Amino acid sequence: MADLLAPGARLTERLGPLRIRLAADRLDALLITQPANIFYLSNFKGSAGMLLVTPDDACLVTDSRYATVAQALVAASAAEAPLTVVQVEWSYEETVCAVLTDVGVSRVGFETAHMTVARHDWLERGLAGSGVTLRGTTGLVESFRQVKDADELATMREAGGRISLVMEQVLQRLRVGRTEREVAADIDWAIRGAGFDGPAFETIVAGGPNTALPHARPGDRRLAPGDLVLLDFGGIYHGYCVDLTRMASLGTPDPAALAWHAAVREAHAAALAAVGPGVRASAVDTAARMVLERRGLGAAFAHGTGHGLGVEVHEAPRVGKHRPAAAFPGSGDEVADVRLEPGMVFTVEPGVYLPGHGGVRLEDDLVVTADGYELLTHVSLDLLVIDDAPV
Amino acid sequence: MADLLAPGARLTERLGPLRIRLAADRLDALLITQPANIFYLSNFKGSAGMLLVTPDDACLVTDSRYATVAQALVAASAAEAPLTVVQVEWSYEETVCAVLTDVGVSRVGFETAHMTVARHDWLERGLAGSGVTLRGTTGLVESFRQVKDADELATMREAGGRISLVMEQVLQRLRVGRTEREVAADIDWAIRGAGFDGPAFETIVAGGPNTALPHARPGDRRLAPGDLVLLDFGGIYHGYCVDLTRMASLGTPDPAALAWHAAVREAHAAALAAVGPGVRASAVDTAARMVLERRGLGAAFAHGTGHGLGVEVHEAPRVGKHRPAAAFPGSGDEVADVRLEPGMVFTVEPGVYLPGHGGVRLEDDLVVTADGYELLTHVSLDLLVIDDAPV
Repeated sequence: MADLLAPGARLTERLGPLRIRLAADRLDALLITQPANIFYLSNFKGSAGMLLVTPDDACLVTDSRYATVAQALVAASAAEAPLTVVQVEWSYEETVCAVLTDVGVSRVGFETAHMTVARHDWLERGLAGSGVTLRGTTGLVESFRQVKDADELATMREAGGRISLVMEQVLQRLRVGRTEREVAADIDWAIRGAGFDGPAFETIVAGGPNTALPHARPGDRRLAPGDLVLLDFGGIYHGYCVDLTRMASLGTPDPAALAWHAAVREAHAAALAAVGPGVRASAVDTAARMVLERRGLGAAFAHGTGHGLGVEVHEAPRVGKHRPAAAFPGSGDEVADVRLEPGMVFTVEPGVYLPGHGGVRLEDDLVVTADGYELLTHVSLDLLVIDDAPV
Repeated sequence: MADLLAPGARLTERLGPLRIRLAADRLDALLITQPANIFYLSNFKGSAGMLLVTPDDACLVTDSRYATVAQALVAASAAEAPLTVVQVEWSYEETVCAVLTDVGVSRVGFETAHMTVARHDWLERGLAGSGVTLRGTTGLVESFRQVKDADELATMREAGGRISLVMEQVLQRLRVGRTEREVAADIDWAIRGAGFDGPAFETIVAGGPNTALPHARPGDRRLAPGDLVLLDFGGIYHGYCVDLTRMASLGTPDPAALAWHAAVREAHAAALAAVGPGVRASAVDTAARMVLERRGLGAAFAHGTGHGLGVEVHEAPRVGKHRPAAAFPGSGDEVADVRLEPGMVFTVEPGVYLPGHGGVRLEDDLVVTADGYELLTHVSLDLLVIDDAPV
């Protein structure tokens, strides 16, 4: 498992700026409940766990199912990034209250966007009279995760190359007569075969009118002659997500499909051209949106232009319309219209959707560089036309 | 998509008792944020959405990505189970505040275990002065979901049969030399091929010492002669989850492995024998645990005996040790030691884990009946011994 993990020195590099930020916010510790944040700071990936970061320690609270894995993490990173493991007896909440009281901290931050009201109420009651008080925080670890370090970029570059090969293989094998579900099963198999831990999200295979659904789910519809086909899938590689969308046509595409494809391709190019350090994320969205509006397809572009990628398949930065912050809970980075910085990784995926008719989306992943961007995914943007070979 | 959905009449049957409960709790409405609860009451399955249930309406708040799907649901169930759809403009929170204010309700329940502190704080601010007050609830819809109706049982019976066939096929094809990851990819492909929407959770393929990890993740280790192999996977069929674990040995198993397997098999039988209406869920756990303790393997049984199954792969009832409710947030049904009722569906999956050596788990799904239980999964519990055929 060692090769899947950030080295201890990296964990220390990640914890350092977070600890400086906690001190600036006059917090004695941060209780981290978001699984991706826990993985980023400790290499621990489980379905349950909490991480308490203090000025000189990181304490992982987990349960007996993960005891062996947690001990291996301690052994792997002990020299450079000390990690203590505490095992839950009855409940996470009860154990965390005991840890917080023992550690001797007073002001403890928690993640308001990743703690339920039920858990918060319980902790408040459990800590009453202990001298420990909980303070809401928003997007602290997420703001650091937005900018990838060299190890993360190396992993994501490799992942982008591998998912691109999967896309090329899958596109070549599309045939009339197969169901969306069958094609999705083949894709998921190919994703695993390419060295990914698994799909990064539910693979989308949409044919014909189903291409008009931005979040189509593969069904029993068979691909038919003349269908537009949308393939949108991703993989998790050493803990990091990539995400890619391409289009094909089974036989000669109709003129409307060609027009949608040309418009989306132009919007995709305009978005890329807008990317660079210091640019507002919303400016990338605007660049794509203006192209589609000029083509009369503005209303058909029913989502934002992109989303950050990393440990999560949707993370900061958000690349969409500039929105009124007042309409959103907190003011987290997932909402903020950030200025792009080198090392930020996100998708560019304009699309148009004409309900009942069809749709087109084209998606790539990129990292912002000092003078623009570098694509992580590499597949021709052409609408691949597949002749109606025998099934 | 129609065949994937509960008929409108079923939705009405599900909403009826919930509305009675809301009236008893003096709530004018319930704001549902848990995706499985939303699906159960509306057939809507998306990555984002909220459902507001009032005495005479159900209002689905969702965003533009799901507009077409949501309108299809309205059309499908309109006659029997009225559903209104409201589309989000800027944020879910802002839209929900507007809906709550418009609808003219006063006391509105929300799900404390499924709403973050950030969202709750925002809603409280957004509703200030509106006359709408939020009241915490716990496990309201979950308590109804525990007992499956005839449609749900028919779906889960079919799913249990299908996943059993997948297990039989996969077991027969296990071979020395394949990696855990490759076998997992084949399993996920077979799950899709058997008509499932996809795996119900990350498929577990563990060989040799990795069988000692209750939540092992498939890696690059190749299956070797003499390995114990643990396969634990499930599928989602028409929205419902099933879950199955079996063991194989590549070549003659060593005596320790045989002893673990015999003990777990006996614990599995003891758990089944304890199942029946009126029995406490913890009594099923105790029955399995006592067998393993008698065999000196009590400490090696590192988890509960089972978990409820349905729209979620882990839901109520919890089948584990009787635990002090005071140690847990709220007092939800996911924690409560319920008395079993006909129609409850859960797994029975005792296991033993000897770190560094290996482990065994055997898992089936069952529904409680008037006089005991009915198994939903049907695969021999034997340790399948696979001779070392050429790779």
